[in-house]
Amino acid sequence: MSNVSLDDIEAARRTILGHVLETPALPSPRLSVITGAEICIKYENLQPTGSFKERGALNKLASLTEAEKKRGVVAMSAGNHAQAVAYHATRLGIASTIVMPEPTPFVKIAATEAHGARVVLHGETVAEAEARALKFAADDGLVLVHPYDDPKIIAGQGTIGLEFLEEDPALDTLVVPVGGGGLISGIAIAAKAMKPEIEIIGVEAALFPSIWNALHGASRPCEGTTIAEGIAVKNVGKLTLPIVKELVSDVVLAEEVWLERAVNTFLTLQKTMAEGAGAAGLAAVLADPERFRGRRVGIVLSGGNIDPRMAASIMVRELERDDRVVGYRISIQDRPGTLGTIATLFGTLGANILEVHHRRLFLDMPARGARIDVIVETRDRAHAESIERALAENGYAVQRIDTGAGGFEPV
Amino acid sequence: MSNVSLDDIEAARRTILGHVLETPALPSPRLSVITGAEICIKYENLQPTGSFKERGALNKLASLTEAEKKRGVVAMSAGNHAQAVAYHATRLGIASTIVMPEPTPFVKIAATEAHGARVVLHGETVAEAEARALKFAADDGLVLVHPYDDPKIIAGQGTIGLEFLEEDPALDTLVVPVGGGGLISGIAIAAKAMKPEIEIIGVEAALFPSIWNALHGASRPCEGTTIAEGIAVKNVGKLTLPIVKELVSDVVLAEEVWLERAVNTFLTLQKTMAEGAGAAGLAAVLADPERFRGRRVGIVLSGGNIDPRMAASIMVRELERDDRVVGYRISIQDRPGTLGTIATLFGTLGANILEVHHRRLFLDMPARGARIDVIVETRDRAHAESIERALAENGYAVQRIDTGAGGFEPV
Repeated sequence: MSNVSLDDIEAARRTILGHVLETPALPSPRLSVITGAEICIKYENLQPTGSFKERGALNKLASLTEAEKKRGVVAMSAGNHAQAVAYHATRLGIASTIVMPEPTPFVKIAATEAHGARVVLHGETVAEAEARALKFAADDGLVLVHPYDDPKIIAGQGTIGLEFLEEDPALDTLVVPVGGGGLISGIAIAAKAMKPEIEIIGVEAALFPSIWNALHGASRPCEGTTIAEGIAVKNVGKLTLPIVKELVSDVVLAEEVWLERAVNTFLTLQKTMAEGAGAAGLAAVLADPERFRGRRVGIVLSGGNIDPRMAASIMVRELERDDRVVGYRISIQDRPGTLGTIATLFGTLGANILEVHHRRLFLDMPARGARIDVIVETRDRAHAESIERALAENGYAVQRIDTGAGGFEPV
Repeated sequence: MSNVSLDDIEAARRTILGHVLETPALPSPRLSVITGAEICIKYENLQPTGSFKERGALNKLASLTEAEKKRGVVAMSAGNHAQAVAYHATRLGIASTIVMPEPTPFVKIAATEAHGARVVLHGETVAEAEARALKFAADDGLVLVHPYDDPKIIAGQGTIGLEFLEEDPALDTLVVPVGGGGLISGIAIAAKAMKPEIEIIGVEAALFPSIWNALHGASRPCEGTTIAEGIAVKNVGKLTLPIVKELVSDVVLAEEVWLERAVNTFLTLQKTMAEGAGAAGLAAVLADPERFRGRRVGIVLSGGNIDPRMAASIMVRELERDDRVVGYRISIQDRPGTLGTIATLFGTLGANILEVHHRRLFLDMPARGARIDVIVETRDRAHAESIERALAENGYAVQRIDTGAGGFEPV
């Protein structure tokens, strides 16, 4: 078995009590209706630094000797772990050094520094940053706070399992995002000890199937651009993999489109902000509702630190997918009054015009022709189709175009 | 005094128990840091229909006689009250008719119908819809479920006050959005009965100062386009005004820019979705932090039903206000290679290009000139200014422009 026990997790809970939020676990009637499962959400995005990472970080920091606390700690992370370590180290009067990869977005560097850490930029990847962090540990005697492969970290994250099952003992399934595996390992140890028949399901981003590979003896590539950067991990934890193998029923892969939809669903139906990795649990349920139908499913919303432009873009892209924001390209004779006629027609059809681009400098147009791109807001898909038909019936050559309404595409 | 007592509110609590969420009330360390007050948030946006309105609606519906239940209910509303009445009436097997103004957005009509109501569109305003609802009540014997001016509604909303002070008895100030006044009346009755020294502060949208007018003997206009349409009420309640006069210390006015900032702050710092009206409490604290400094402030986040396009636009507009999304208009000689040179310069300066518009058909340009509008993402205001200087130093005539990056402006 593992070297983390239910006792360790209960001890972690006493350690972090009053310093980390006991986050709410609430039933979601709306998500239950759309999935066919009874959904309960655990809101780790409400933690002060926006993710569950504080639980493990604080449990580790509190375990240090006075001499270790005096020397300080070091961690490598481009994201939530960095902020969690910085926040609690500063609170406890411990100096913290965070090694971040050089391409880390400035806002994340600034947030980590604002929590009182010294930030050192090194290397292109988290793996290269880790090498630098290990050197700090060796050279300066700093204690490494590993993001997942540490019994204290695993025990800290496991407190989520204790709280979740206490709040809702009827849960029969937990769906948990998987990066390095610290979160799911801790939760699985706690939940299986409290309720052996509960099923634990992990979710990885399909672009980074590292634990999935290890479980299936596969070697799919771990690469690509994902909105779930918080679980885009190439390595498998030495401590966490055996725990996952023993206690987790299955690790499933969430495609990008379902990660995006889950972020949007949390925002629009559940009124809460999840980052891509934080929404992975819901993504898995949305992508395969049959698997969860009729079950009582606890979803760990593990973090909410998403770039505002990304969140904005995801919401608008989803309106496009639903044909509630639609672009029409209309070829017209280039004569005065035509735009007025078309704009009036859209108004009559009940479509709200958002943008108009009137162009006449394209070679594929006749010399006396012009092209109008109109982006409108519609009620729904049927409405969008009826508008297209009405334009054709009024004699206009019309085609659908990508609206670009997302404005900022997810990178 | 009023005809609603603490006993009525405690009875309401027993009535709605198990059918309406006892929403979490959680401290917010991050909002506390930026405001200088100790902030605690009550998350009414987590209710199944996304707002506090369910509390009053269910308390009223449960009070009907069997004969009244059989005849059904009618309500007028363009928003949250409509969904709340429809949802709980359907759940209780009561037929509901909701009269909505004709300009009501289709999504709100669809949401109300999806909860099982019959929707009737009538008139241009809620006042005209109310006249039609009263006629349904008179002609068909339907019971009117008023959005605020009813003791059962006030008692239902008051359950928020009970829960909030039980969860955090140290609160010394409550900040509550004010539309018709049902929410603040109920909360004030409960909170003042439990803790007479607590201060209750109401917040109206500055464009709709109806109760502020009544309290100050003023007659400022109630008109204009606000993102807080949920509290854009012209009338003052006959029952609620005397309660507000007796128990509420002050009603303050929130300008649109602070309502927008509060929505953005809830999203980006607190990871939760508030509609404009739902964010009014935070808007008041952000606009005047001195008034609240050092106090323990409970903010009622009353609802989260915001149009996704509006939420997306608000987030991106805030990045523009912070100069983290900036537009530069650069006048250039129209010769091959210039765009490449400029784009390379932006890259060197660490600015991420989001959009480029290359134009040469403007009369204010020389015949051989062209104009390039470049919209970039910057680290912060100082970075944006350093980019502008660097462009000038490289010999380009440059000016700042509105980016339009919000994409969709709030209407």
